[in-house]
Amino acid sequence: MGKDKVRVGIIGAGRIGKIHADNLLRNPHVQIVGISDLFAGPELEAWASMRGISVVTTNSTELIEHPDVDAVLICSSTDTHVPLIELAAQAGKHIFCEKPVSMDLHQTEAAVAAVQQAGVKLQIGFNRRFDHNFRQVRAHVQDGSIGEPHIIKITSRDPSPPPAEYIRVSGGIFMDMMIHDFDMARYLSGSEVEEVYAQGNVLVDPVFAEYGDVDTAIVTMNFANGAIGVIDNSRRAVYGYDQRVEVFGSMGSTAAANDHPNTVELSTATGLLRDKPLHFFLERYNEAYVQETALFIEAILKDTPVIVDGHDAVQAERIAYAARMSLEQGRPVKLREVTSVSLDSQTAVQS
Amino acid sequence: MGKDKVRVGIIGAGRIGKIHADNLLRNPHVQIVGISDLFAGPELEAWASMRGISVVTTNSTELIEHPDVDAVLICSSTDTHVPLIELAAQAGKHIFCEKPVSMDLHQTEAAVAAVQQAGVKLQIGFNRRFDHNFRQVRAHVQDGSIGEPHIIKITSRDPSPPPAEYIRVSGGIFMDMMIHDFDMARYLSGSEVEEVYAQGNVLVDPVFAEYGDVDTAIVTMNFANGAIGVIDNSRRAVYGYDQRVEVFGSMGSTAAANDHPNTVELSTATGLLRDKPLHFFLERYNEAYVQETALFIEAILKDTPVIVDGHDAVQAERIAYAARMSLEQGRPVKLREVTSVSLDSQTAVQS
Amino acid sequence: MGKDKVRVGIIGAGRIGKIHADNLLRNPHVQIVGISDLFAGPELEAWASMRGISVVTTNSTELIEHPDVDAVLICSSTDTHVPLIELAAQAGKHIFCEKPVSMDLHQTEAAVAAVQQAGVKLQIGFNRRFDHNFRQVRAHVQDGSIGEPHIIKITSRDPSPPPAEYIRVSGGIFMDMMIHDFDMARYLSGSEVEEVYAQGNVLVDPVFAEYGDVDTAIVTMNFANGAIGVIDNSRRAVYGYDQRVEVFGSMGSTAAANDHPNTVELSTATGLLRDKPLHFFLERYNEAYVQETALFIEAILKDTPVIVDGHDAVQAERIAYAARMSLEQGRPVKLREVTSVSLDSQTAVQS
Amino acid sequence: MGKDKVRVGIIGAGRIGKIHADNLLRNPHVQIVGISDLFAGPELEAWASMRGISVVTTNSTELIEHPDVDAVLICSSTDTHVPLIELAAQAGKHIFCEKPVSMDLHQTEAAVAAVQQAGVKLQIGFNRRFDHNFRQVRAHVQDGSIGEPHIIKITSRDPSPPPAEYIRVSGGIFMDMMIHDFDMARYLSGSEVEEVYAQGNVLVDPVFAEYGDVDTAIVTMNFANGAIGVIDNSRRAVYGYDQRVEVFGSMGSTAAANDHPNTVELSTATGLLRDKPLHFFLERYNEAYVQETALFIEAILKDTPVIVDGHDAVQAERIAYAARMSLEQGRPVKLREVTSVSLDSQTAVQS
Repeated sequence: MGKDKVRVGIIGAGRIGKIHADNLLRNPHVQIVGISDLFAGPELEAWASMRGISVVTTNSTELIEHPDVDAVLICSSTDTHVPLIELAAQAGKHIFCEKPVSMDLHQTEAAVAAVQQAGVKLQIGFNRRFDHNFRQVRAHVQDGSIGEPHIIKITSRDPSPPPAEYIRVSGGIFMDMMIHDFDMARYLSGSEVEEVYAQGNVLVDPVFAEYGDVDTAIVTMNFANGAIGVIDNSRRAVYGYDQRVEVFGSMGSTAAANDHPNTVELSTATGLLRDKPLHFFLERYNEAYVQETALFIEAILKDTPVIVDGHDAVQAERIAYAARMSLEQGRPVKLREVTSVSLDSQTAVQS
Repeated sequence: MGKDKVRVGIIGAGRIGKIHADNLLRNPHVQIVGISDLFAGPELEAWASMRGISVVTTNSTELIEHPDVDAVLICSSTDTHVPLIELAAQAGKHIFCEKPVSMDLHQTEAAVAAVQQAGVKLQIGFNRRFDHNFRQVRAHVQDGSIGEPHIIKITSRDPSPPPAEYIRVSGGIFMDMMIHDFDMARYLSGSEVEEVYAQGNVLVDPVFAEYGDVDTAIVTMNFANGAIGVIDNSRRAVYGYDQRVEVFGSMGSTAAANDHPNTVELSTATGLLRDKPLHFFLERYNEAYVQETALFIEAILKDTPVIVDGHDAVQAERIAYAARMSLEQGRPVKLREVTSVSLDSQTAVQS
Repeated sequence: MGKDKVRVGIIGAGRIGKIHADNLLRNPHVQIVGISDLFAGPELEAWASMRGISVVTTNSTELIEHPDVDAVLICSSTDTHVPLIELAAQAGKHIFCEKPVSMDLHQTEAAVAAVQQAGVKLQIGFNRRFDHNFRQVRAHVQDGSIGEPHIIKITSRDPSPPPAEYIRVSGGIFMDMMIHDFDMARYLSGSEVEEVYAQGNVLVDPVFAEYGDVDTAIVTMNFANGAIGVIDNSRRAVYGYDQRVEVFGSMGSTAAANDHPNTVELSTATGLLRDKPLHFFLERYNEAYVQETALFIEAILKDTPVIVDGHDAVQAERIAYAARMSLEQGRPVKLREVTSVSLDSQTAVQS
Repeated sequence: MGKDKVRVGIIGAGRIGKIHADNLLRNPHVQIVGISDLFAGPELEAWASMRGISVVTTNSTELIEHPDVDAVLICSSTDTHVPLIELAAQAGKHIFCEKPVSMDLHQTEAAVAAVQQAGVKLQIGFNRRFDHNFRQVRAHVQDGSIGEPHIIKITSRDPSPPPAEYIRVSGGIFMDMMIHDFDMARYLSGSEVEEVYAQGNVLVDPVFAEYGDVDTAIVTMNFANGAIGVIDNSRRAVYGYDQRVEVFGSMGSTAAANDHPNTVELSTATGLLRDKPLHFFLERYNEAYVQETALFIEAILKDTPVIVDGHDAVQAERIAYAARMSLEQGRPVKLREVTSVSLDSQTAVQS
């Protein structure tokens, strides 16, 4: 590895892989060596060529093991994350992996262990930690502006549900959508979740019921530091992407409102009108995506810890498992009930 | 009773009794006949004299049964509510009673039954239903602006905790403080609560623990119409009285922010500064207090239903009992578990 | 005069006279002795009787000179202000007078001189000085929060124009409407206006042109302390009453936004919607009306200076004259050009 | 010129030249051929090399006439704009030129005439037209949302004054700073300014007086469509860059507030605190800079009119001249008084 440049391979040329690639291209400390995708072909080659990316392959192993690659970004489907992490760790490559690492806590823990053994860096794609609003809320908590945290509130609603084929393999609302909020709860509170209680319902689209999923959910949490918290999710907020957080404490409260495409207010005989919030995650977290990979690169170059590591992945997944158990069993579930057993065996226990 | 004037007796000359009296004095359809208080004396007589209120007595029965009195406002301590309601009902007088009716569901139900049998009106002092903000939120729900309600969120935080002697007899955070929010949840959702799950902690002041109470709490709710909801309470928000609600539905969301003493924003080198919200309930709900008694009088004169009746009192108390059970037992509690048994016997069952 | 009570006579039973009466009825330090109106009759007698006001007369002189009257509120038409002020001053009665004192600076100055000679108090009905928002802006200026004032900006727009018959005798937009803003400019800046430049146009309704008036105007001002300022007026803001101010200074800026009937925001697929501002002056300045007469009474009882005095009336009228001259002559006009000559003679000079 | 790519030369490697270069590097339809700067040396060569820009020269003529260059961005000092525009026009190159074109209206008009004769495109760097907020305000005006415009208000305040050496050659507050607002006034109103009246003062720093300049100014404007408007400028707003506009019309009003680095509000015992607005033009207009050059390139490729052309430059400069005349002469100045005579000769006429 060069002293001031990290040479990167991108695994998976879907939407998020390409976004990361374009963001990294603007980073003077990065050289993108190649991109791999199961469906790599002329189109991807043209895309790569315009960007001066020389290697385009269907073989992710080849890219990971490529001698010019210092670090990989794993942006392929969730089921490939664990084997690719293990492969990259063995090859001594630093790893950025999209969330969740897997649907199986045992496997996630195994992947994290492999990374630790190899001594490489692993950063998880919890991009919201890099958002300008949430970082400021966290800063207010950490610098003591609000005293001791008492109540953490997170609202997270998507503008519209994903397609049925996505819902089917998504892992459910807690693993697919609320997992971001579980990570945010830990990030903002500076404490671990000890217990959750989940409520949920199918109010948006009956298709969620077909897959044993819900589309509207509230999860309450107890934290190790005594704080309590609540997250609410909906798969469809017709007014757009709703991403707000609040931390209330002994000395005050800090709260982030939504971002909007502009600040314009139109006053008419009907009332005062503003534009809806920024539509979805690509618009809202545009700059957070830039930041998360930039800081991943920086952590490699300076050999400093990443901001979201394997432990964070494991913890968020444990909370998601616990929330699902809580919803299925209609009772509060302690995190210590959720150990290295797969979600399937947990489900088996329940039935 | 005169056709366009209601003659009123006030029971209890504490802060809220005097506020109702002063508000009613401005109502051309009201004549305040008298006021009773256990500690009535020269001071109260002077107060009454300045307002042209002729009867001042320590004997509430006398005032209730006074032939010139058409309606009574029961503003005395909670333990007196039920006997006074029953007395007034028997005397054929209309009744406005502060919340809660009692700490014992059986007694509350008995009082409500007495009222129904007597055919008089009973309005409960859930003043927040008359607040300009919450009424608008409710209107948006009822006129279909947000479609079907999916998520109801209520934040309710006091600027500072009451004195220890009050805490001791308050009935606990759910019966004393969150009971307003339970009523608000029913009011905003237009649906009944079927199940609650309560979390709570002592984070503000250890004195709450001494009385088996908590000072910080989150309660989640399932509604009959499929909606889910959450309330958070704190006994101390250093920035003032925090009273916000949000109803999210299939077609949109409606949310009320806090009221402030002014709209002024100060921009300096440090940042942008606004005044804190209106300090406490007397400031925030000033106009709501005026409205609630004005509409009580109007309901009597027009013989129309009151906006908050005995059933509303019973339901809010049932939810408060259920929340307390949930917190004590660490499990979700269905409202149908809470029937006409006293809170004491419930507590007995638990231990 | 009693030591803790002021006995008041109301001159003029129009809308504003009745508002002041009702506000003062709630003031324990006031007794309303009587009300006079040119068109006093059974209706006004009934109104007065309901309020315990004993004297009802068509003869304002009789009321002013009534031995039980300590102070008068002059709420009759503008042309009657000066003779009534002089009469009241001679009778040794304190005076509250609606704005403007007159359309003729010479007469206004004469009335103020009569008041000074008689040693009674004169308060002018510039009610906006008592508004919760503007008082806070002024406080920020006076306590040094914004340093030295550099720029004063005032926006003042009515929801709809008055009827044609009112426009005809209104004295024009500067004397009728912007005079409030001229007083506000002096109040907020803590300095005297030295020069004005006025622009105006007929954009709302051609009827204004018929009376030589404009319906849309911008006036810029130079202040003695070096600050500069600007006021904009419109006779019709379809979204309601628009009343905002801003003072920008060497250390920051303080700005008051509009008041709204509630804080509710409705989020839908179309956008985010809020209610319009409070509709007009009765709603917006409701509390300011209460405050202005309460503080007038307090100034009498404590023998302290009133907050808006005769000098304030003279200065605001001088600015209004200057603005009209500026618009007519198309040039900046210095206040020192406007002396004790009537507006008519000024106009004569111009032509 | 290639069909889907514009080959660009950058004249002037100061801050704004480099920003445009970096923005264009991300544009797939642009190839940056070279950059020229009087002080080009090893540092600039290194900068260019990292970006794949092959030509680095001190000779702007060479770059303009380079056969591979289709278009030039003139980012050098104001005194060089006119000769460079004329040179580029003669060479048949499209031109993007920073504002102002010159300090001499005659020269600006000559440059614009040369461009028209050559049939090349000329876009002026009025970047604010491309701002997300102001574009939305303009859209509301153009789509009829506010009816006919009546009042245009623009607030534009810098966080801190430029250094004395800059002030000396800046051309004064109207030509250097308010010229952006003059263009904005035309853009938002959709109408031409016919008359201006300027007030100004030295309130921020006496250095401005040394150069015959002011640091605080208000300019009122009459528009051809009957609307009236006002701009206020300050060279120092301690709370940051203040960039707001409002257009009020017959059917409503549209107003843009400031942009902030985040939406977080901190509530404490002191009050509610928000971060200051985005600090200065590089932060606030970051995206506007990207847009303005992107749309310049698009106009070339599609052969469509640019959004800000030579006429817009001339008009904004005429207004700036008129404002300066107004301030110097203490009277309103009509735009038709400002013709193709140099500012110097105007000044001569005045003295």
